[in-house]
Amino acid sequence: MLAITNIGELVLVPPGPVRGSSMGAIPCLEHVAVVIDNGLVAWIGAMNDLDAPADCEILDAFGGCVLPGLIDCHTHTVFAGAREAEFVKRIEGKPYAQIAEEGGGIRVTVEAVRNASCEELVELALPRLQRMLENGVTTVEIKSGYGLTVDDEFKMLRAIRKLADLQPIELAATYLAAHTTPREFADRPDDYLDAILSDTVLARIRDEGLAEFCDVFCERTAFDVERSRRVLMAAAKFGLRGKLHADQITQIGATGLAGEVGAISADHLETIDQGGIDALKQAGSIAVLLPACSWFLGVEQAPARQLIEADLPVAVATDYNPGSSMVESLPLAMTIACTQMRMTPTEVVVATTANAAAAINRHDRIGAIKVGLQADLTVLEAPNHARWLYEPGRNGIRATLKAGKLVHTSR
Amino acid sequence: MLAITNIGELVLVPPGPVRGSSMGAIPCLEHVAVVIDNGLVAWIGAMNDLDAPADCEILDAFGGCVLPGLIDCHTHTVFAGAREAEFVKRIEGKPYAQIAEEGGGIRVTVEAVRNASCEELVELALPRLQRMLENGVTTVEIKSGYGLTVDDEFKMLRAIRKLADLQPIELAATYLAAHTTPREFADRPDDYLDAILSDTVLARIRDEGLAEFCDVFCERTAFDVERSRRVLMAAAKFGLRGKLHADQITQIGATGLAGEVGAISADHLETIDQGGIDALKQAGSIAVLLPACSWFLGVEQAPARQLIEADLPVAVATDYNPGSSMVESLPLAMTIACTQMRMTPTEVVVATTANAAAAINRHDRIGAIKVGLQADLTVLEAPNHARWLYEPGRNGIRATLKAGKLVHTSR
Repeated sequence: MLAITNIGELVLVPPGPVRGSSMGAIPCLEHVAVVIDNGLVAWIGAMNDLDAPADCEILDAFGGCVLPGLIDCHTHTVFAGAREAEFVKRIEGKPYAQIAEEGGGIRVTVEAVRNASCEELVELALPRLQRMLENGVTTVEIKSGYGLTVDDEFKMLRAIRKLADLQPIELAATYLAAHTTPREFADRPDDYLDAILSDTVLARIRDEGLAEFCDVFCERTAFDVERSRRVLMAAAKFGLRGKLHADQITQIGATGLAGEVGAISADHLETIDQGGIDALKQAGSIAVLLPACSWFLGVEQAPARQLIEADLPVAVATDYNPGSSMVESLPLAMTIACTQMRMTPTEVVVATTANAAAAINRHDRIGAIKVGLQADLTVLEAPNHARWLYEPGRNGIRATLKAGKLVHTSR
Repeated sequence: MLAITNIGELVLVPPGPVRGSSMGAIPCLEHVAVVIDNGLVAWIGAMNDLDAPADCEILDAFGGCVLPGLIDCHTHTVFAGAREAEFVKRIEGKPYAQIAEEGGGIRVTVEAVRNASCEELVELALPRLQRMLENGVTTVEIKSGYGLTVDDEFKMLRAIRKLADLQPIELAATYLAAHTTPREFADRPDDYLDAILSDTVLARIRDEGLAEFCDVFCERTAFDVERSRRVLMAAAKFGLRGKLHADQITQIGATGLAGEVGAISADHLETIDQGGIDALKQAGSIAVLLPACSWFLGVEQAPARQLIEADLPVAVATDYNPGSSMVESLPLAMTIACTQMRMTPTEVVVATTANAAAAINRHDRIGAIKVGLQADLTVLEAPNHARWLYEPGRNGIRATLKAGKLVHTSR
């Protein structure tokens, strides 16, 4: 049994999904304590009413704010290589097509991942996950998608599974072999899809439990709507729930497809239109926004306010990846959502807890603070969550708990 | 004697000011070592040629990049109170005027600073400076300007002096009593200027060495060009060199005034026009850009590329302050300059070293890496400076040296 005492502000995020204007209206309790038993929240009440047994461990929050453990629901944390040369070229104004021609782009990461062993991928990702933990993150979704051969995609999924065993952050794996068509299949995208969507491959993923979700990059330069539909339908037959990289650069109807196939989430949405909004509403999909990506690329942000006004459940994630979002800090992505997308701090907290949990189908267990739910909690140094997001570039995490276990403290 | 060995990349920033296109063309040496003696850089050469005496201390850079110690040349690091409520209101779309009417704005900080003792101001600022040091910063300019009475402005300047003695970062103090007209002098700005610019006050600042610079907020809502001229001319008579908050919100000719009075720097410049650019060029002033401020406020950035193309020496700083830039991390401001202003990593390094040194009149001693200059150095974990700025939100500082002394190591 563990009691967190002297909590200055407890942000009582309810289980997700939380829609639209409800995201900004979350009750906050002051001067409270939380008791954790068997990994679950067992009691929430006023400090004065706390009646913990003598052998109860105490974690003093020193007046700090307590949130649900943060959830980064869209990342590419497993990768090899670095692409700062491309970062510089983009700043110099080179278009992505030219960067790719000059040997840059996703191909660089694919080469590096193919040349790395599963163990090397694990070694590279471990310190990244450690820093995420230090940023208050307790659950991370990680996609494959840099192998682009069946074997290399399996290598990535196995790396994710090993990582889950080696460190405290809970991981959710997504099969993203349909990230782009690899060079070996240039002009033969359907042949590539044949390879990665064969019954054998998908059955192995299911039988070995290597992924829960299947994602596809539905974009003019990647897979069109028809091919993306094929990807998600094939995966669904083997129990993998669908996700899409949708409406990032051009509007080709990707979000409409997300609605049609009942995707659990549609991610990016920088160019979403009214049809896409309607489709997501009907399907109940989570709208996952990636503010650090647009910020890193120096391009327009997704219309977060419009989505919230449309009563959608909005989530926010880092999109951590070596090409378009070398941002492993979810708190930094959260402040970018505040300053560049005009989401309020409260909305952003909901977007990275309850709604992020819903985007990876864990909202019945995590992403909320409620008696009976898992005690994944982030303890801040700041006395309230707005103060915390108002101080970007500073690590303001005092402690992180996963299933009631203290997995990180700042000192 | 100390040798830094195994430097992967030594960014040979020359003494500032560095103008225009020269900012992006800085030589970088690979596989080198640096020998420091008596606080100065004594030798730079290939690792293989290093011939250090047996009693020479060794700092292994492990292949990391070495830069001049970072200089934050525009900050308001001494303050009390917090303004996250205003941050939320701004996100909700409230204009500053309304925020001020509802009790927010600079008035909140002025109240808190007036109510704090000098010792309290010092206690509040110390951990901020400690975190700046952990971010590779070795020199910081700090302004007064939240006291707005002669006594409270002196209290702030004395706090800055005490801070200089209590921690390793070198501080430069700026008298910014002309930050805004305080309520007691509403509609009587000239009477306020009489008070803060009296010969007695300015002579005391000079005689006690409490400030090197005088700054004025030249803006429609603060001091017009005529009054700003008066401020800077009065201060100049007592040896304080001029700085301006210029062209931030509206274009009223502030940068023109900077040129006219030969200000050492003109800061902000979001609305600078061609006349302002010409004036700065003629006067040799440093153009200090504050990308974290515009980012924090969610407004347009200053036209960095236009200023660089005009052959101006451009500096970059955090503008760290509780209202418009709660960003104490200079590296974060640097990546914002890359992604939102399209400055290259090399330009941004020059802007926060050589040119930042020039903006606070220290370019003969610091801000560069050259035999004979002071050994203020920042050692990165990343193998090159582009890699470092490409990974925002992660502290990538391995070690920081001030005048040859190791003042911070990451582990």
